[in-house]
Amino acid sequence: MRIFTESEIKQMIQLEEKILPVIEDAFTQLAVKDVIMPPIMRVDVKESNGEVDVKTAYMPEKDMFALKVSSGFFNNYKLGLPSANGLMMLISTVTGEPKALLLDNGYLTEVRTAAAGAVAAKHMAKKDVQTVGIIGTGAQARYQLKALNLVRDFEKVLVYGRSSDNAKQLQADMEDILDADIQIAEDAETVVRNSDIVVTTTPATEPLIKADWLHPGLHITAMGSDAEEKQELEADVLKKADRFVCDTKAQCARLGELHHSIDQGFISEEASVIELGEVTSGKVEGRLNDQEITVCDLTGTGVQDTAIALLAFKLLTEKEGIGLQIDNKKSLHFT
Amino acid sequence: MRIFTESEIKQMIQLEEKILPVIEDAFTQLAVKDVIMPPIMRVDVKESNGEVDVKTAYMPEKDMFALKVSSGFFNNYKLGLPSANGLMMLISTVTGEPKALLLDNGYLTEVRTAAAGAVAAKHMAKKDVQTVGIIGTGAQARYQLKALNLVRDFEKVLVYGRSSDNAKQLQADMEDILDADIQIAEDAETVVRNSDIVVTTTPATEPLIKADWLHPGLHITAMGSDAEEKQELEADVLKKADRFVCDTKAQCARLGELHHSIDQGFISEEASVIELGEVTSGKVEGRLNDQEITVCDLTGTGVQDTAIALLAFKLLTEKEGIGLQIDNKKSLHFT
Repeated sequence: MRIFTESEIKQMIQLEEKILPVIEDAFTQLAVKDVIMPPIMRVDVKESNGEVDVKTAYMPEKDMFALKVSSGFFNNYKLGLPSANGLMMLISTVTGEPKALLLDNGYLTEVRTAAAGAVAAKHMAKKDVQTVGIIGTGAQARYQLKALNLVRDFEKVLVYGRSSDNAKQLQADMEDILDADIQIAEDAETVVRNSDIVVTTTPATEPLIKADWLHPGLHITAMGSDAEEKQELEADVLKKADRFVCDTKAQCARLGELHHSIDQGFISEEASVIELGEVTSGKVEGRLNDQEITVCDLTGTGVQDTAIALLAFKLLTEKEGIGLQIDNKKSLHFT
Repeated sequence: MRIFTESEIKQMIQLEEKILPVIEDAFTQLAVKDVIMPPIMRVDVKESNGEVDVKTAYMPEKDMFALKVSSGFFNNYKLGLPSANGLMMLISTVTGEPKALLLDNGYLTEVRTAAAGAVAAKHMAKKDVQTVGIIGTGAQARYQLKALNLVRDFEKVLVYGRSSDNAKQLQADMEDILDADIQIAEDAETVVRNSDIVVTTTPATEPLIKADWLHPGLHITAMGSDAEEKQELEADVLKKADRFVCDTKAQCARLGELHHSIDQGFISEEASVIELGEVTSGKVEGRLNDQEITVCDLTGTGVQDTAIALLAFKLLTEKEGIGLQIDNKKSLHFT
């Protein structure tokens, strides 16, 4: 078994253009091939305000698939620790043997999540974008901006977060990275009304975006909601959008924005919903014109994890002298 | 993160008496405490005749819980490889951080499964046992015999397996270990009619034991069935038994013998079924007299995995100089 650590993984794989077709292909396979993707396994550890999720997906014709364990423990800040932890395991699809362990502490999840945002925008946002709005100021907000920059040129970024200090920090961090004017907005409404693309990257449990604020040509990617209680968009935003796309209908109907729209009767449970893979595969057209209002609901899928883990493994093993090789059956005499 | 391999784990933990109270306590906690144990996650890899299962359970008041990944790839024999693979991960219940990786290749599962068989027999089998019957001749058949020997004295073992070569090999292997006369039986019927305890340890998909063969005082532990299509006991065996116990009702009703008895109408889906933890905790009495016919259905639970993994971790970390310590965030410069 091969073992790689966060620093090694970060050294060999970054959020860059070559990631996008890999994630795009994962969505395509999910829509058109026999991908096996069981529902997320979840363990709630209430005493520690924590949760552990397990995601996996087997893509036909790949020699391995990933199983990802990720946790969010929201009291960790009191201990000076990050709330998120995680690792991915690669398992042989031929023998079932565990082949690699990617001790990435959630880094690959950040990358594949941002890449999905870029894939959604590539197909669903206007070609000609002036302003990108970002709601939320965490690590993923930064990754989403970098990823959007791979698929669209934009001149301006509007940032809104509950903490203006965090918004300022994001502004400062991104000014060096993006060739764009980064401004802090007063509120979410200002962001939505004045942007061509809006990405929401928060753990909100009350909607941040109202349907009233939508305007022709807007594309929204809501990627924060990945649990029953989370919600970033008012339930009627999905109804008001001309077209609504989700990463997987089954998961979004349980954990995403779609869940709340179904609950509140704006969308019927049986309604056919476009999945991102239908768009990436060409089965369904992306944005039809510059007037459409489009919304994409991303909850995060195991197939993205398998795709990014396979790419990471390829890059890590091409390079000599990094990582660790362990024989499961023998003693680790070198300690 | 600490990493331990199979040989280190085998060196520090064996199937012996001290394991039993640990597994007993796991069942008790499952019955009386707020154990969080989500349904098994399963990925089928049909092209390779393989399956990967993920089990987990969080026991309150423990500082870690286990997540186990186990696979069975049934074409592996063509490659000269064992069909089973697996590892356990220990995750902090305080911070969500992965704390240890037990690269046991399924060894701890063998131990905790055998221990559960012993716990079932301890409470449900007659005190005075002459003959133990074992149906199936794989590794777990050997473990089950060793485990029974920790809770009952017996003079004779009757073995039946489809392959008489395998039965002979088991006989030869166990003669050195058990102080009992080990005989090979012609068929399953001979085993059942002439034993006080019968353990079935097969991957059978057609029942091996008929209700007609049951006799007063018999205890059966069926531990092979852990998937929808598997079945070791005729569906009416559970009906004919005076008392039926299972490891968890929810899981046995989906994957165990109980599943087939419900399907065929011998037991109603709503019927209250005794769980092993109710017996180990004393809420429900074990065997009431020497005439009862008792049956225990074991599908294997995440709480057993957490219990054995915590014990293994304790024993492994008490000993100095074994295992490997990795800092997830740093490069593995010692390769």
